Amino acid sequence: MTAVAGNPLDRHDVHERVRKALSTFLSAQLPRLDAVSDELGPVHDALAEFLLDGGKRLRPAFCFWGWRAAGGEDSDEIVTAAACLELLHACALIHDDVMDGSDTRRGRPAVHRRFATLHRGSGWQGDGEGFGRSAAILLGDLCLIWADEMLVTSGLPAESLVRGQRVYDQMRVELMAGQYLDLLEQVLGGPSIARALRVARYKSAKYTIEGPLHLGAVLAGAGPDVLASFTAYGVPLGEAFQLRDDVLGVFGDPAETGKPAGDDLREGKRTALVAAAAERANPRQAAVLRRHLGDPRLDPTGVTALREVITRTGALADVECMIAQRTDEARTALAMAPITEEARIVLGELSVTATTRRL
Amino acid sequence: MTAVAGNPLDRHDVHERVRKALSTFLSAQLPRLDAVSDELGPVHDALAEFLLDGGKRLRPAFCFWGWRAAGGEDSDEIVTAAACLELLHACALIHDDVMDGSDTRRGRPAVHRRFATLHRGSGWQGDGEGFGRSAAILLGDLCLIWADEMLVTSGLPAESLVRGQRVYDQMRVELMAGQYLDLLEQVLGGPSIARALRVARYKSAKYTIEGPLHLGAVLAGAGPDVLASFTAYGVPLGEAFQLRDDVLGVFGDPAETGKPAGDDLREGKRTALVAAAAERANPRQAAVLRRHLGDPRLDPTGVTALREVITRTGALADVECMIAQRTDEARTALAMAPITEEARIVLGELSVTATTRRL
Repeated sequence: MTAVAGNPLDRHDVHERVRKALSTFLSAQLPRLDAVSDELGPVHDALAEFLLDGGKRLRPAFCFWGWRAAGGEDSDEIVTAAACLELLHACALIHDDVMDGSDTRRGRPAVHRRFATLHRGSGWQGDGEGFGRSAAILLGDLCLIWADEMLVTSGLPAESLVRGQRVYDQMRVELMAGQYLDLLEQVLGGPSIARALRVARYKSAKYTIEGPLHLGAVLAGAGPDVLASFTAYGVPLGEAFQLRDDVLGVFGDPAETGKPAGDDLREGKRTALVAAAAERANPRQAAVLRRHLGDPRLDPTGVTALREVITRTGALADVECMIAQRTDEARTALAMAPITEEARIVLGELSVTATTRRL
Repeated sequence: MTAVAGNPLDRHDVHERVRKALSTFLSAQLPRLDAVSDELGPVHDALAEFLLDGGKRLRPAFCFWGWRAAGGEDSDEIVTAAACLELLHACALIHDDVMDGSDTRRGRPAVHRRFATLHRGSGWQGDGEGFGRSAAILLGDLCLIWADEMLVTSGLPAESLVRGQRVYDQMRVELMAGQYLDLLEQVLGGPSIARALRVARYKSAKYTIEGPLHLGAVLAGAGPDVLASFTAYGVPLGEAFQLRDDVLGVFGDPAETGKPAGDDLREGKRTALVAAAAERANPRQAAVLRRHLGDPRLDPTGVTALREVITRTGALADVECMIAQRTDEARTALAMAPITEEARIVLGELSVTATTRRL
């Protein structure tokens, strides 16, 4: 992503400064890993590539603007604290890809695939796939540990960090709880819009938008009125964000999303979009859903057939409408929030970025 | 484990107080999970059973005695802080069992097995084994998050926690680095005593003994001389602890270890014990090792054949000798350590517990 004027992620150069903070942090970790063994080089390299070469860095941006909204001064310390959310997110994604068996992330091999390839290329013994999965579990754990360390060593004052820790813990617990509900959703019978939205709320809305805003605001010493307004803005916007993700998972352009076309369909993900299609399907359309959803060998013809059902049932239009309603709700809350004007403008722009994005 | 006079784990009632601290902490987490969804009940129950119904709680004991050794007063706050190490350890074990595909832990089904069984018993759709593994990855993550939260909310003063955080981070990073080296060890050709000992040092010695002692000592405000003496005591003792673990993995009584007989042999674990046997084996013994080590269907006859090779090559005696030397080295360091006399006595007893245990 280049620094285009008008991209709210680039205001105050946040996107690039977050990258630099991550790069500095990771460089400082390298000698620590080296002290254990130079065989840990691939661990460091895999995480550096994952963290520095991609990602929208939306969560750090919301954290930064939560801080600014509550009157916090711009500083490198808050950027470093905010950047820790990229490490937390890396843990979630790396473990998620192991759980889903997804081969691709951000247009590159998933971490477990990368280590399976390392195993094969090195002529090591035993099960390369298993080695890849195990390594990815450990790398995710390391990201979770480092996220914490990055926040605590950000340079923000101790009293600020003590306040922040509670929000951060809440956010992390809700993330893992949401991930578990998502697992459950995939194995329970019959998709349901209500259940899919609840998963979206915990797995994504609170974690992607409300949580980061709260973290930034609390670090800056914000009171309950600011936090309440961020909930009113963040939860509907976060749901809209997740719904956009669901749409992109079915209709997204692989060149932009970095994921193969129809990947969510192949995995059989129970999203609100799929639930809406199932609820509205006639018997012939229901048969198409049953036949193709979750078929690991789903081919382009199958993808097209599923897309048609999702469009023709009106499910796509339903979800687009849900996105619009939630984005609107978020904007109304934002208009009334007791925050700085600069932050109100940027958060307004971020609400567009988060819900009209193509990747 | 009952409160037997003379068991150093029970001095100051540490074992039971750690259990209570964990129980209080977990009870406080339940409403938080419930607020997300009552479907998270099994997550809480699985972790409560894992944490409250078993485990030697050796790491909290070393942390507590590190604190006392440095002159810290006995308090519930230090017990709570020390108990966080059980949560960290739960993460390591739960993820380890997923990585190894181990079915049993502490005489009960491993967490991933438990959730696979829940899946089957609930008549859910899809792959129950996959659901179990995914749930266990998330539960391990949750333990890692909670460990952190338990330390930070232990009630110890902020300046103490800031000092402790650095040691805790170092410990966690070395744990994950050691786990990765262990993975690598299993896929590299040819067992080596030197490599196996390096894995033991990072995966176990520093993490099980030196790290907890340092954490307790640093929380109490200990200086570099105390820390250095704990390194001199903790690293050899930790290696001895891991070597004892290796012996128990081959010769341990399933009724005491809670693991099936010969589980490490079936997994083909590259321990120092196995490396010593391989180095000393004659061609016939080497053939037995090649044939049986890592055979997933290894039967009692195969276990007996391997045990015989490990004994007859002298590898078992070698390792027992290494354990004795390291324990001795630890005791010498302890005798000179600038710590309280009570702690010196208990740490002397703990060095026996850690290396002569049968589970």
